[in-house]
Amino acid sequence: MSKYYELDEKTVIDYITNKVDFFAKDAVLETEEIGDGNLNLVFRIKDIKNNTSVIAKQALPYVRVAGEAWPLDIKRGEIESKILEIEYKLTGGLVPKIIKYDLDMYVMVMEDLSDYIIMRYGLLEHNIYPKFADQITDFLVKTLLLTSDVVMNHLEKKEYVKDFINPELCEITEDLVYTEPFGIYDRNNVEEDLKEFTEKNIYADTKLKLEVAKLKFDFMNNAQSLLHGDLHTGSIFVNQESTMVIDPEFAFFGPMAYDVGALVANLLMAYISADAWIEDKEVKEKQKEYLLKTTGEVIDLFNEKFLKTWDEVVTDDMAKVEGFKEHYLEDVLINTAGVSGCEMIRRTVGFAHVKDLDAIPNNDKRIDAKKTNILMAKDLIKNRAAFTSGEEYINLIKKYF
Amino acid sequence: MSKYYELDEKTVIDYITNKVDFFAKDAVLETEEIGDGNLNLVFRIKDIKNNTSVIAKQALPYVRVAGEAWPLDIKRGEIESKILEIEYKLTGGLVPKIIKYDLDMYVMVMEDLSDYIIMRYGLLEHNIYPKFADQITDFLVKTLLLTSDVVMNHLEKKEYVKDFINPELCEITEDLVYTEPFGIYDRNNVEEDLKEFTEKNIYADTKLKLEVAKLKFDFMNNAQSLLHGDLHTGSIFVNQESTMVIDPEFAFFGPMAYDVGALVANLLMAYISADAWIEDKEVKEKQKEYLLKTTGEVIDLFNEKFLKTWDEVVTDDMAKVEGFKEHYLEDVLINTAGVSGCEMIRRTVGFAHVKDLDAIPNNDKRIDAKKTNILMAKDLIKNRAAFTSGEEYINLIKKYF
Repeated sequence: MSKYYELDEKTVIDYITNKVDFFAKDAVLETEEIGDGNLNLVFRIKDIKNNTSVIAKQALPYVRVAGEAWPLDIKRGEIESKILEIEYKLTGGLVPKIIKYDLDMYVMVMEDLSDYIIMRYGLLEHNIYPKFADQITDFLVKTLLLTSDVVMNHLEKKEYVKDFINPELCEITEDLVYTEPFGIYDRNNVEEDLKEFTEKNIYADTKLKLEVAKLKFDFMNNAQSLLHGDLHTGSIFVNQESTMVIDPEFAFFGPMAYDVGALVANLLMAYISADAWIEDKEVKEKQKEYLLKTTGEVIDLFNEKFLKTWDEVVTDDMAKVEGFKEHYLEDVLINTAGVSGCEMIRRTVGFAHVKDLDAIPNNDKRIDAKKTNILMAKDLIKNRAAFTSGEEYINLIKKYF
Repeated sequence: MSKYYELDEKTVIDYITNKVDFFAKDAVLETEEIGDGNLNLVFRIKDIKNNTSVIAKQALPYVRVAGEAWPLDIKRGEIESKILEIEYKLTGGLVPKIIKYDLDMYVMVMEDLSDYIIMRYGLLEHNIYPKFADQITDFLVKTLLLTSDVVMNHLEKKEYVKDFINPELCEITEDLVYTEPFGIYDRNNVEEDLKEFTEKNIYADTKLKLEVAKLKFDFMNNAQSLLHGDLHTGSIFVNQESTMVIDPEFAFFGPMAYDVGALVANLLMAYISADAWIEDKEVKEKQKEYLLKTTGEVIDLFNEKFLKTWDEVVTDDMAKVEGFKEHYLEDVLINTAGVSGCEMIRRTVGFAHVKDLDAIPNNDKRIDAKKTNILMAKDLIKNRAAFTSGEEYINLIKKYF
């Protein structure tokens, strides 16, 4: 750690100038800290003379939102840069290009996505991304299926599993997604007006907790594929033309359903939020229709591309047995619904919330939206075997709206 | 590898005298190579003056039964010695004590078990081991449950998973247990008189192969517990008083069912063999009764001790949810039946057979025994959800005998 220091808006310019061969000699650099994540410092460094820019992301040795009292292995930055390189190759560019990774400073310098917006904020601004479902399902099928034992050489895959074991970041998920939201824990953040509902509908529901326990152990033990590990709409940059996935520092070999489920949950929460918050009726209906359609398309396109790609890339002899790919996919889809439910619950009554729900200004509407979110989540977890097509998600939404 | 050379019955005496502080100064050493395994050299070195002895086991850089054309990572010996130390602590001595592990020579020197017999040969000699079911279920519950996420700190467990990733040895199992016996592969060894039966009942049974594919992917991906990885009756030393498990070089974090299932399969094959081979009617009935009872007891004691131990050692909060331990155990038991079936099939029509079946002298009886073995195995794989108690295994045996 001796060569490590935390960057700030001043020192990052020196750092980039001396350590990274990217900007022109006559560059005039400006910078701003744009990180709103929970873990890292993120700077945009811009050459205002030549209109070029890069992003520098530095890992901190603690959890940013919690402070130095919650230490975290700083080497996660190295995992992240390796994962981005792997995902770049697998997806043909659905993640940003890495320009440099600095092993002393734990700084990753990468392609700036200044003409993109974080999807969560884009959706909150009532934007529509017509190519998103197609592009994100490309990302999912390529990163997940191509790193599974269905396709990879089994010896190489096990070396990958070893390289990307990620105990501290997995523990965060185990605690914050699969444990604490379901009981009384200090880090939980439950609105006063939601407490009674939460106690009755979550803490007291043993059947729900049993299903969550099953999903938790699947998350911990099922080293199926190289996951992104945190694929919510805050980890995705979008614009009208393209999609870029960022922030894979939670990556590890886990169940495919964890990535697909996190994504679907955040689309469902965006839907609930749009219903509660958008004032203009026409805009609201258009946004809800888009989110309904996109949720269904994500499931159906994932389904369709998964089966099609399987036939093109399968190498394992037993995976070629009749009926196996359908069984394998069905298992992923069932657990996807379960994961979605866990993500929706933890974003409502756990430690880390989403702006979609928390920022609904009207108190009654916000509490109602959160209650609906919890009820839908319970349905997804407890009846997860019923959710294997886009239609079933659409029917779920229609049941509540 | 520069300091490495293959030991033989002459050089091993020099090696032990110079490298291992075990024998008395006036020792008169004799040695014999006693290895009958597929992978290693095993020597017993005995001081005939003072009547003490040790075992020296040396890893070879290739598969012994196949020769140098089938290379194998020699470092597996290191994994084995570490696993024996872990299992020694977990089980309070149900594995031999390690005296020394030599990182240059890949030699492990350990406690000699000269007053024990390899269980497979003991059973073939019609011996009965009254304490076996109780002791082996202690071994199973302690090694499996105590290394799972139910009990272990999740961060430490992931470091263990990483340390014991074992790609080459796992690949042997993936190929020889879960793939090749179910189709036409060069390494398969199918008796001429069994070929038609095998084609019809195994290769042509798509439903069977689909179930085996599911079990194969569970084996590859489910990093549940630290397994022995090769727990057949050739990896177990027994006598009237005690049980010692040896040879954990296939150890890795995998599904608990793989260890329990391998054991149960070998008890079932011993039963089939006893029925086909023992001439004396009284001895035959006594042996069959013992094996029937032991098979049932292994399942029931595993069941009982697992649930009892769970309550004493569980640490994971979600694992404490009502109903979870029963669900978890049921899943282990169901897959145990599936694994048993795979092990029984691969020992009949795969690469590595067992003496129990192959050595039945009468041709018709041997072929019949192998056919029965295959049919029982198919039942175990295809109907595995029905096998969650000792009684159900006993009923299965009674259905065929």
